[in-house]
Amino acid sequence: MSSTTPPTNTPLTYDQAGVNYDLIDPLKIAAQRAAAATGSHLGAHGFSEVGASRGESAYVVDVGPMYLASIVECLGTKPLVADDMAKLTGKSYYDGIAQDTIAMAVNDLITVGATPLVVQAYWAAGGSDWFNDAQRSQALVAGWKKACDTCQVAWGGGETPALAGIVADGRVDLASSCTGIISPKSRLSVGDKLGAGDAIVFLAASGIHANGLSLARKLAERLPQGYLTDIGNGQSYGEALLVPTVLYSPVTEALAKAGITPHYCANVTGHGWRKLMRHPKALTYRITSVPPKTAVLDFMQRECQLDDHEAYGTLNMGAGFALYLAADQAERAVEISRSLGIDAWVAGRVEEGPKRVVIEPLNVTFDGDELQLR
Amino acid sequence: MSSTTPPTNTPLTYDQAGVNYDLIDPLKIAAQRAAAATGSHLGAHGFSEVGASRGESAYVVDVGPMYLASIVECLGTKPLVADDMAKLTGKSYYDGIAQDTIAMAVNDLITVGATPLVVQAYWAAGGSDWFNDAQRSQALVAGWKKACDTCQVAWGGGETPALAGIVADGRVDLASSCTGIISPKSRLSVGDKLGAGDAIVFLAASGIHANGLSLARKLAERLPQGYLTDIGNGQSYGEALLVPTVLYSPVTEALAKAGITPHYCANVTGHGWRKLMRHPKALTYRITSVPPKTAVLDFMQRECQLDDHEAYGTLNMGAGFALYLAADQAERAVEISRSLGIDAWVAGRVEEGPKRVVIEPLNVTFDGDELQLR
Repeated sequence: MSSTTPPTNTPLTYDQAGVNYDLIDPLKIAAQRAAAATGSHLGAHGFSEVGASRGESAYVVDVGPMYLASIVECLGTKPLVADDMAKLTGKSYYDGIAQDTIAMAVNDLITVGATPLVVQAYWAAGGSDWFNDAQRSQALVAGWKKACDTCQVAWGGGETPALAGIVADGRVDLASSCTGIISPKSRLSVGDKLGAGDAIVFLAASGIHANGLSLARKLAERLPQGYLTDIGNGQSYGEALLVPTVLYSPVTEALAKAGITPHYCANVTGHGWRKLMRHPKALTYRITSVPPKTAVLDFMQRECQLDDHEAYGTLNMGAGFALYLAADQAERAVEISRSLGIDAWVAGRVEEGPKRVVIEPLNVTFDGDELQLR
Repeated sequence: MSSTTPPTNTPLTYDQAGVNYDLIDPLKIAAQRAAAATGSHLGAHGFSEVGASRGESAYVVDVGPMYLASIVECLGTKPLVADDMAKLTGKSYYDGIAQDTIAMAVNDLITVGATPLVVQAYWAAGGSDWFNDAQRSQALVAGWKKACDTCQVAWGGGETPALAGIVADGRVDLASSCTGIISPKSRLSVGDKLGAGDAIVFLAASGIHANGLSLARKLAERLPQGYLTDIGNGQSYGEALLVPTVLYSPVTEALAKAGITPHYCANVTGHGWRKLMRHPKALTYRITSVPPKTAVLDFMQRECQLDDHEAYGTLNMGAGFALYLAADQAERAVEISRSLGIDAWVAGRVEEGPKRVVIEPLNVTFDGDELQLR
């Protein structure tokens, strides 16, 4: 609650939270160019890449009777919150952390229309003794298993290296790789059919998910009660941050069973709603109805003194996943998601126009040059 | 050279190098059990796992017209050697480190008969500024690209997170995921056909590869000139350690083109030649001809005062990959590998008998209970 917080003179922005994308980006660009030059190798095996998947959230290869999609995703710094909260409460939050890690991979893989089939675990600890905390280890295993059950994916195996000297002592670097197929091939959704007239459907987020945690941790340092601060609904800030990311593959699979193929999908992660204009096409994404912020993001926006442009350009603000659909399928998609316990809304539409996201009710616009992914 | 080293009273063993597998193993076992229980989820999508791949080096799913294989693999602590050597010589070794990282995944994936198709990069740095070293970043990108070229795989994309607080400052946690297919399905090699009478063919290693580096680093601390110690052939210990891991997929692909399907394969990594009895079958693996140790492993064995049982049970000792083949195809396999520039030898045979590895020329035996992988 803001009343528990002393007034602060300066807003807290993402740049202040210590991640400098200017340093990472030149490497990323060099890597993307080198990677693009390797796609032709698939010809040696009789296959080819789906060129439109370059720069999308998952990479797609045409192997003849089906497409193959694959990805590796890092969880990020959310375990630092779990570690701090474990010290404060004595509980382990690694069951939720496991779900977050799988969600990072699965929610990206499904954007291209893939059915996730196999998840591999990457748990790199700062030393062998990390695994010695039985409560934490069991929570990690149980949460990983449960998330696989929810997504109906096979947990293929993985790596549990002890990397003293590389991973910090007492910490763990968590990631997940996911492999799936797109079958029938008509399920491929890399944006070819994305266009004016499409409806935008949002699937509800459960909280901050796993992006914006550097900012969230920075804020915790400024709160007098830190992670134990009540966010206004009786829930502590730390508990609220640690609510695990929603797994959206049950929705996309149910849509496929109902004969609904999205024209495009966006996993709303880093860059917040700027991600809505992820596809390279020049189109305007007009949001006419803004879903409720989750309590923790409402709290963060207020406490960090973020204006709507900053908040919606950085965090998911209640919308964890976006589907771009033929307009006449939008209401049915909402019903299907709700029937699975995931709230959903028809939030807007795609229009002809310059590349930008217009959030009408908030009078916020993100221009095309505010998102640089490729 | 041992003359440059003061006499030491105690041999240096792997346990002393700081990796305690007893702590990791209970978690591993819990994870393996939970993972095994998720295989049935594939039925919901009309597919099934290849049960025999559980516990093998890559996980295999039957998707109808072909098998799908996937894996994620960590490089380990080899970058610490590269970082130390960069300080000593001013050179970047991350081109070789990139190849090592890809080799960890590709060389495991091919053991089940898969053609690697897509590699994803996982480069988690201790902070954004890690990527600011242009020489190192360029070497990493160039080496990654070159390894993809050698293996004819597509570099699909990846992750370059900055994980301050999780990855140690100035360090990088490198991993790779790899996805491939087994097509035609007759190329599957999970050991069904492995049996007495098979020949064992070794493919040459280039050096230590990427296993045993904790021990190697510990030894460097004991050498008066550390990584700059001459190993006896004019090469420094550090340079010799950093020779990148051989990529074996060109060999397995060439074998397939020649109509040779191994009955089984073992990537000789951690656990050294104990890995030769990786398959659960009760069989005796008799090695009758021991290939030359690479110079760096010969040096390590001498300097660490490892007896043959310890050395061959921990390090690759010159044999980086093992093929188990119908005896009448062994010489042809050796020729094919040599034609690709990778030395190879018919090293022994599979026999009826208790599960064990017998290295006849060295009078060393590893009993079945000396390898616990599942």
